[in-house]
Amino acid sequence: MATAPHKQSLRKKLYTIIFEAETPAGKWFDVVLLILILSSVIVVTLESVVELRREYLQLFLTLEWVFTIIFTVEYFLRIYSSPKPLNYIFSFFGIVDLLSIIPTYLSLFVLGTQYFLVIRVLRLLRIARIFKLTRFINEGEVLSKALRASMAKIMVFLGVVLMIVLIVGSLMYVIEGAQSGFTSIPKSIYWAIVTLTTVGYGDIAPSTTLGQILASFIMIMGYGIIAVPTGIVSVELAKSEKEALASTKVCPNCHEEGHQSGAHYCFNCGYHFKSFR
Amino acid sequence: MATAPHKQSLRKKLYTIIFEAETPAGKWFDVVLLILILSSVIVVTLESVVELRREYLQLFLTLEWVFTIIFTVEYFLRIYSSPKPLNYIFSFFGIVDLLSIIPTYLSLFVLGTQYFLVIRVLRLLRIARIFKLTRFINEGEVLSKALRASMAKIMVFLGVVLMIVLIVGSLMYVIEGAQSGFTSIPKSIYWAIVTLTTVGYGDIAPSTTLGQILASFIMIMGYGIIAVPTGIVSVELAKSEKEALASTKVCPNCHEEGHQSGAHYCFNCGYHFKSFR
Amino acid sequence: MATAPHKQSLRKKLYTIIFEAETPAGKWFDVVLLILILSSVIVVTLESVVELRREYLQLFLTLEWVFTIIFTVEYFLRIYSSPKPLNYIFSFFGIVDLLSIIPTYLSLFVLGTQYFLVIRVLRLLRIARIFKLTRFINEGEVLSKALRASMAKIMVFLGVVLMIVLIVGSLMYVIEGAQSGFTSIPKSIYWAIVTLTTVGYGDIAPSTTLGQILASFIMIMGYGIIAVPTGIVSVELAKSEKEALASTKVCPNCHEEGHQSGAHYCFNCGYHFKSFR
Amino acid sequence: MATAPHKQSLRKKLYTIIFEAETPAGKWFDVVLLILILSSVIVVTLESVVELRREYLQLFLTLEWVFTIIFTVEYFLRIYSSPKPLNYIFSFFGIVDLLSIIPTYLSLFVLGTQYFLVIRVLRLLRIARIFKLTRFINEGEVLSKALRASMAKIMVFLGVVLMIVLIVGSLMYVIEGAQSGFTSIPKSIYWAIVTLTTVGYGDIAPSTTLGQILASFIMIMGYGIIAVPTGIVSVELAKSEKEALASTKVCPNCHEEGHQSGAHYCFNCGYHFKSFR
Repeated sequence: MATAPHKQSLRKKLYTIIFEAETPAGKWFDVVLLILILSSVIVVTLESVVELRREYLQLFLTLEWVFTIIFTVEYFLRIYSSPKPLNYIFSFFGIVDLLSIIPTYLSLFVLGTQYFLVIRVLRLLRIARIFKLTRFINEGEVLSKALRASMAKIMVFLGVVLMIVLIVGSLMYVIEGAQSGFTSIPKSIYWAIVTLTTVGYGDIAPSTTLGQILASFIMIMGYGIIAVPTGIVSVELAKSEKEALASTKVCPNCHEEGHQSGAHYCFNCGYHFKSFR
Repeated sequence: MATAPHKQSLRKKLYTIIFEAETPAGKWFDVVLLILILSSVIVVTLESVVELRREYLQLFLTLEWVFTIIFTVEYFLRIYSSPKPLNYIFSFFGIVDLLSIIPTYLSLFVLGTQYFLVIRVLRLLRIARIFKLTRFINEGEVLSKALRASMAKIMVFLGVVLMIVLIVGSLMYVIEGAQSGFTSIPKSIYWAIVTLTTVGYGDIAPSTTLGQILASFIMIMGYGIIAVPTGIVSVELAKSEKEALASTKVCPNCHEEGHQSGAHYCFNCGYHFKSFR
Repeated sequence: MATAPHKQSLRKKLYTIIFEAETPAGKWFDVVLLILILSSVIVVTLESVVELRREYLQLFLTLEWVFTIIFTVEYFLRIYSSPKPLNYIFSFFGIVDLLSIIPTYLSLFVLGTQYFLVIRVLRLLRIARIFKLTRFINEGEVLSKALRASMAKIMVFLGVVLMIVLIVGSLMYVIEGAQSGFTSIPKSIYWAIVTLTTVGYGDIAPSTTLGQILASFIMIMGYGIIAVPTGIVSVELAKSEKEALASTKVCPNCHEEGHQSGAHYCFNCGYHFKSFR
Repeated sequence: MATAPHKQSLRKKLYTIIFEAETPAGKWFDVVLLILILSSVIVVTLESVVELRREYLQLFLTLEWVFTIIFTVEYFLRIYSSPKPLNYIFSFFGIVDLLSIIPTYLSLFVLGTQYFLVIRVLRLLRIARIFKLTRFINEGEVLSKALRASMAKIMVFLGVVLMIVLIVGSLMYVIEGAQSGFTSIPKSIYWAIVTLTTVGYGDIAPSTTLGQILASFIMIMGYGIIAVPTGIVSVELAKSEKEALASTKVCPNCHEEGHQSGAHYCFNCGYHFKSFR
């Protein structure tokens, strides 16, 4: 077939525009997509305000359909241009792309569309893809590396927090009772979380002396133990930054990276740095 | 007696299953126990919800007895299989194990069982034992070592916090008086803790101008001094991590410490580690 | 012209007094200006209290005009004394200086002067100039350098926070509905921000079980992820401090960097710094 | 005079007991004093509870006089035993000691004794002296050194916070107006402090859309900028700890302290460490 090479190049061109961001066209595409996604989420958000919905319902519906049709075209172009369409369709972003257009079509047949609101808001996740292509990727990687490295410590910390919250919640249920709003252990645990995290709504608050003493303890504890995750993340961030820095020094003999600042010999092959510098 | 060696091996086998987690059977035992403990705590929690108790009281009672009987069997197996039963019985976990089954039996004879709720929730502490056997132990140890090392500093910090809270509480009692809810010094101290820790329920809040100025000061102070425990724990964590990394390796030639994990040569004198180990 | 050199020297003298702070007269000028700015802002602030305005309106108006006339004289002296008047007029501080006198003159012709209040409060920004001339500049520079260096990471962090807040807000709108105060998605997002940042007003609070479970998750998340910006800023501050200390000195013999302030000999090769400087 | 040497030795003995803590008697004295101070503060605190005062007024009065007489005796013993009595009387702790006994005597002649409550609570400050003599002094010194070192940076930070709070407060006053509780700029500033520090009482909360958007900004800002003081203190603590560590290495030639870990030569006199170790 004569059109094959042309088609091939069209698909490649589309792929460069849609999936990459190096070319001017690719950057333009990303900017326009970013604006469309944000606008469509803002429309969903405003649609939920009763006063606005009453007045501008027709406008909202029209806009919603415009966005959906554009996103649908984009979805099929993505399938068309990707070298392995099935890989794309079942990838995380492929599913998010599908979920961001389906609710509008379903709303034609199904009632109770308010539950689709949340799905439509998930369009926001599509922004993550755009950022993937920009300079933020490095920063995000350092952050997420530090978070992954401190995951085990943070799990231990969260486990201890949950234990404190459960035990203090049960104690408060027994001490305060239903008059102060501590009507059940789950509700007391909810109060303990509200207090330990220093949110403090005030919808439930202890009224007995013993309850207020216990509440004081959990408050001061919550105020203090926030230091633990902060310390963990600080240390991990410092480490992962240091590693990123250390890699700038490379042994001229064996090309090993990650030397300590101040090292006189390569830790891998024993080469004497001084003789080189 | 001929059965002695057989019995001995049964007890040893039970010990490996119940107290350790290296064998497949031991891991299975831990997973089942974890599920049972969590389920039993969830049942206790839900039992406290009035609407649920009214409807499912019979189910809750049955489940509670099922859990108690299983835990009782487990308790006696632990006593039977441990080499020094008395050591186990009077150990921390031995007492927690006993406390987690006694309330149900006592509820047959004693009224006012709601006070047993908290004791039953203490079953949660049994989970700590299971985690002791897993990979979280290292992370927990680094954390608790850092916390123990910073204990003295944190005590000084807490002492200063308590002094601030007491003095500000007394001042607010005199400034605001009973109309704003500051009915006594203990209540004012409770308010000062709620404010300094940035919980801020809002059940008591200053209404006079002078009171609001003082409240502003304590808020900004509380917002600022949270930096102190955070800084303490960060520094201690960084130290204890560094020690864990560094103390494991010393150069046998120049006795330099602080080598990177994975180093083949001393960074100070160029000695080849491999030739030594 | 005979007066030119005299004028020139007067302008130069005024410039030294008004724009600099090295001379005693310059320091005096700064202190007086600082007091005037603070007094004028306090007067604006107190003027907004209904009880005080009713009683002392005449005093407030007189003071406002006194301050305005002084600031006007200062403004024209600044224009007169600066070597390039246009540069000053269109600089950031030139505009702030103009904005701090215009509202009072406009209030003669225009009604609805309460909107000028905010502009008058902007006088506060003029204080920033005074601090620019003092020893705080170094500290401020280290801080702002660290903040600028961590900007990209903090943007990623804020992006993730906004995504969480939008998705959780939409979920809560569907779960809780209008009875609990979650009347629209924007309002639910506002609640999510109030909760995630651990402010917790309590004007809107979840009342259903599912809503309280989701709220617990977002609270613990907010309690934990505050560790991320803290860690970022800590690491950047440590780096920028280290650089400020280290970059000032390089050994002229072995070109080793990172010498302690006050070192007389290179810690690496033993070279005597004094003999070089 | 024959009694002079005896008196001298009695005064010295008393001085060792009262002002120092090395001898067993000195330690005993400190423990008893600590208990007396805490008890007297607890009595003052409980006296302010209306229900308790009504019932136990006589007991409270008696205890107060007992404490006052003991503290009076202690005060005069301190004056008697100190080598330079006037130095003691006009020292910080001398004045605190006097203030902790005077209110009770004054209450015989003056009405409105509730204002003396706060002065009596200041007795707490006397505890600081006892801690001065214990092992907490080192920890406290590291902490206070780090805080003093970061003072300038924290002042810059607080200045920026106050500027934000003033400008946002004025904006909210204009946006929200008196209906939402923002009745004056000082009140709006109070709200801005409550919000920025994440306390969030909820007694005043924005109700307009624009106000809630501005509130969201200040909340996220407050959530983020808490990272700044935390980072500052972390870095300073790490530095002051490092210095405390570094000082353990002393140059055997010039006895200079504070060498970097890994230094081969004394930074002060150029002595080669290796030749010594």
